[in-house]
Amino acid sequence: MLAWAKNYRRAWLAGDLAAGAVVAMMMIPQGMAYALVAGLPPVAGIYASILPLLLYALFGTSSSQSVGPMAIISLMTASALAPLAAPGSALYVALAGQLALLSGVVLLACGLLRLGFLANFFSRPVMNGFTIGSSILIAWDQLGTLLGAAPPHWHGPSAALGLGALALLVLARRRGAALLRRCGLPASSADIGARLAPMLVVLGAIAAVAVLGLDRMGVRVIGQVPAGLPHLNLATSGAHWLLLLKPALLIGFMCFLLSMSGAQALAAKKGEKLLTNAELVGLGAANIGSFLSGAFPVTASLSRSAVNFSAGANSQLAGVVTALLLGAALVLPTGWLALLPLPVLSATIIVAVLGMLESGTLRTAWRYDRADALALLATAGGVLLMGVEAGVVVGLLLSMGAMIWRESRPHIAVLGRIAGTEHFRNVDRYDTETRSGVLLLRVDAGLFFGNVEAVSARAEEELALHEGVRELVLVLSAVNAIDTSALFGLLELNATLAQRGVRLHLAEVKGPVMDRLKQSTLLERLSGQVFLSTANAWHALSSKGDDCQDSIGMAI
Amino acid sequence: MLAWAKNYRRAWLAGDLAAGAVVAMMMIPQGMAYALVAGLPPVAGIYASILPLLLYALFGTSSSQSVGPMAIISLMTASALAPLAAPGSALYVALAGQLALLSGVVLLACGLLRLGFLANFFSRPVMNGFTIGSSILIAWDQLGTLLGAAPPHWHGPSAALGLGALALLVLARRRGAALLRRCGLPASSADIGARLAPMLVVLGAIAAVAVLGLDRMGVRVIGQVPAGLPHLNLATSGAHWLLLLKPALLIGFMCFLLSMSGAQALAAKKGEKLLTNAELVGLGAANIGSFLSGAFPVTASLSRSAVNFSAGANSQLAGVVTALLLGAALVLPTGWLALLPLPVLSATIIVAVLGMLESGTLRTAWRYDRADALALLATAGGVLLMGVEAGVVVGLLLSMGAMIWRESRPHIAVLGRIAGTEHFRNVDRYDTETRSGVLLLRVDAGLFFGNVEAVSARAEEELALHEGVRELVLVLSAVNAIDTSALFGLLELNATLAQRGVRLHLAEVKGPVMDRLKQSTLLERLSGQVFLSTANAWHALSSKGDDCQDSIGMAI
Repeated sequence: MLAWAKNYRRAWLAGDLAAGAVVAMMMIPQGMAYALVAGLPPVAGIYASILPLLLYALFGTSSSQSVGPMAIISLMTASALAPLAAPGSALYVALAGQLALLSGVVLLACGLLRLGFLANFFSRPVMNGFTIGSSILIAWDQLGTLLGAAPPHWHGPSAALGLGALALLVLARRRGAALLRRCGLPASSADIGARLAPMLVVLGAIAAVAVLGLDRMGVRVIGQVPAGLPHLNLATSGAHWLLLLKPALLIGFMCFLLSMSGAQALAAKKGEKLLTNAELVGLGAANIGSFLSGAFPVTASLSRSAVNFSAGANSQLAGVVTALLLGAALVLPTGWLALLPLPVLSATIIVAVLGMLESGTLRTAWRYDRADALALLATAGGVLLMGVEAGVVVGLLLSMGAMIWRESRPHIAVLGRIAGTEHFRNVDRYDTETRSGVLLLRVDAGLFFGNVEAVSARAEEELALHEGVRELVLVLSAVNAIDTSALFGLLELNATLAQRGVRLHLAEVKGPVMDRLKQSTLLERLSGQVFLSTANAWHALSSKGDDCQDSIGMAI
Repeated sequence: MLAWAKNYRRAWLAGDLAAGAVVAMMMIPQGMAYALVAGLPPVAGIYASILPLLLYALFGTSSSQSVGPMAIISLMTASALAPLAAPGSALYVALAGQLALLSGVVLLACGLLRLGFLANFFSRPVMNGFTIGSSILIAWDQLGTLLGAAPPHWHGPSAALGLGALALLVLARRRGAALLRRCGLPASSADIGARLAPMLVVLGAIAAVAVLGLDRMGVRVIGQVPAGLPHLNLATSGAHWLLLLKPALLIGFMCFLLSMSGAQALAAKKGEKLLTNAELVGLGAANIGSFLSGAFPVTASLSRSAVNFSAGANSQLAGVVTALLLGAALVLPTGWLALLPLPVLSATIIVAVLGMLESGTLRTAWRYDRADALALLATAGGVLLMGVEAGVVVGLLLSMGAMIWRESRPHIAVLGRIAGTEHFRNVDRYDTETRSGVLLLRVDAGLFFGNVEAVSARAEEELALHEGVRELVLVLSAVNAIDTSALFGLLELNATLAQRGVRLHLAEVKGPVMDRLKQSTLLERLSGQVFLSTANAWHALSSKGDDCQDSIGMAI
């Protein structure tokens, strides 16, 4: 906690101030836009970017993460609240805060229970598919606001403003950096400058509305933004705790996955070590802060974090600067924001989410592993056809299915002895000697419910191939753990083999594994023995048999 | 398909006939009882035991499995249909069939897509917890019927009949076999004889009701059972397809898990090889058959299969015999069944499900692996507190969480050379030599999204421990596969290390893995080389460095 503050170096200050300011200027349009996506008043997006940032700075460990509203999490928020309350109602606002509170508690609890390993739950193609599906869904939902009427209709002035802003933003994204470089800016500043295009477009749009009186022509604007810092909010609805639990679990889970997928890459670039459990605590605290501010669930946005990183953020102070600047913006007069036209905010949303579409993962996966590519497409399709919550579940099932499939095929090698040595290697890859009557199997994976059946089946197969075998040795040199299901599996294998007159032995059992096995009945029921080394097993078991320089298959 | 019929041996016939008859006598009370659990008329339980058995005999591969109604699946059926229709209504009956159809299609599709590996989805403690929770729930639900009134009230004659039957059945289960042995029956027949107690108790109860006129005293009886085979049923409700999809997925999944958990053990006893994909097809066909008969979802019951096995079933003909006998029972007059008292059926249900409670798994897990024991209790608690569907989800999450946790800690060894040989082994366990500047890491697990971060993190840790290292070799001798996520992870590791002047090399890449990597950009972007063997890497990379007989740690 606050380790960055204790070790703060003066040299970091310039970078932190610059990054903090740049992110604040990104955050004003983005925060308001993502509040709209979540179905909330725009100012809630600013509220979600003050206290949460300060709390993340207190508890989080990444110097680059930029916590705040994020498109996909806002979409999930809207989708969770839609069946429970009418957007804009006081209940809706209260439930959004409550959802942030619950998600925060879930994240905090996972952090304290050290469940950071859950970041490995989604495969990258599935994550990419989820992002693609959600981005398209968000962009699609914005079309009506962009055009000022539900498509295929449109409202002339709104559509002109919206599509104009869209064109400018796309242009800025595509050519902005190159243009600024040509104007003499250094490459890194030019990249950052191009990222401020949404703020400039928003300012221009406000000016256009004011000068041309577009609001009187029917262009919807965001209206009065209340000035001043957010009040302390403690509003919750007692009747909705249980109903919000499932969405809170899903949102907390996705907050973490979305945050980590970006953070890992940025941390690696800096040679920083990311403490995943501390990140969970940081994100949890940020969401609880968002609840206290009367806002909605937040996470670190990959694109904003990348800007924060390249604008020079050296520590969590950058986030503190962002928070202070946003707080200042709320304390200053906010009347000028009232004329911000909604079609332009929609344009910034559409450009931002379409920026998350990248086809590189799909193309790589399609060439490299068709099953992963199909999982990506299925997850994207799941989000588009069944909604964002169902998409998470589809993604989970596909990732888990792939994992189980992999686990059900562990690497298992038949071992033989390198002649004249005490070394035992895979008979398929080395010139080894084996003894008839003895079969050595090395399992290169921990034994657990996902693979113990496969190990038993492989043992049976090898026994069928090598008819004279009476001694089966499982070499457990790479087995870190044996779970309860695998323990039962071994007990059953031992019993089945004993019926057929084959003894089961264990070799090279690791200390911690052995300690645990001593708490079970396996060692006393084992038809064979436990050997310290494969060599011990070899000498003890083959004293009766004959040496043969051949493979087992030939020896029979 | 029908392989058993083609290879049928005359010697099997006696066993198949006996087992078929025994199971038919078990099935009459059991089928009717589990139909009641599912909220359906008792005769549906008999319908569910004719065509499904014939279809399973046609497609299934296990000679011992006894397909038909099963308590937990009936509970899941009732829980799925409760929000959709009133028990006893025509819609309810139609939806039960539709659920069997959908579950059957799910199972069939999984079989044809070769998804049999999904049988590894639940750990054994979680499965046990699920069974325990469901059994208690079923028994609890039967209390009202057993006592003839909602507890704490009771209806005297009903309670007397129900509790009396309960006592008799418990006695038969506990002492029946011993008693029959004392009467001179051989041990195996005595065990089977004791299993027929429910049928005898049911017959006795019918007689008691008839003689004492208990039905006129308010004891509820099952009433008229329609005679004749089931009509072909094709009734479905067009409005309910989507609503039934999720329960059908869960029920199909649990049908498969419940069936396989028993089948594996019985197949191992016979030295039979169970084809899991064919089992899926068999179960799918059976459920579609149950739909056609106007019944409800079915699966193989562990207890019934065990009786089938010990009564001598040698092939699927035993199931055909059961089906034919049950068909005959329906064609003969069924009037005598009308007086069967419901409290006695409840007693058979309670005794059957409480027979599924076994504390051995919990006790073993508690001593051996506390986390597995807690997963068991959490799953049982989930079923009891949140219902059977939520229980499946809790079980899934706990099993998957445990798997991910395991996967996020793959076995990784730093390798050194056994002096004077070309053998490379774990430096922690063997006396090896290493070279400063070169680090060999062997990963004992396939690389995929669940562990690639851990591999990168471990590589970074080892590099931090061994400062002078400029060449990192990943030895992939135990790596069977690298998925798309791991491919990206390796690309990122390669780039990060290159920034720091460390080259990444691969050694002992397996053929299929290499073929796939050639479809990616990894090989061209790799800062180092790909070596055929660890020895090649060792010689090529250490020609510049110095030999040292020490561990790397010492060498720095």
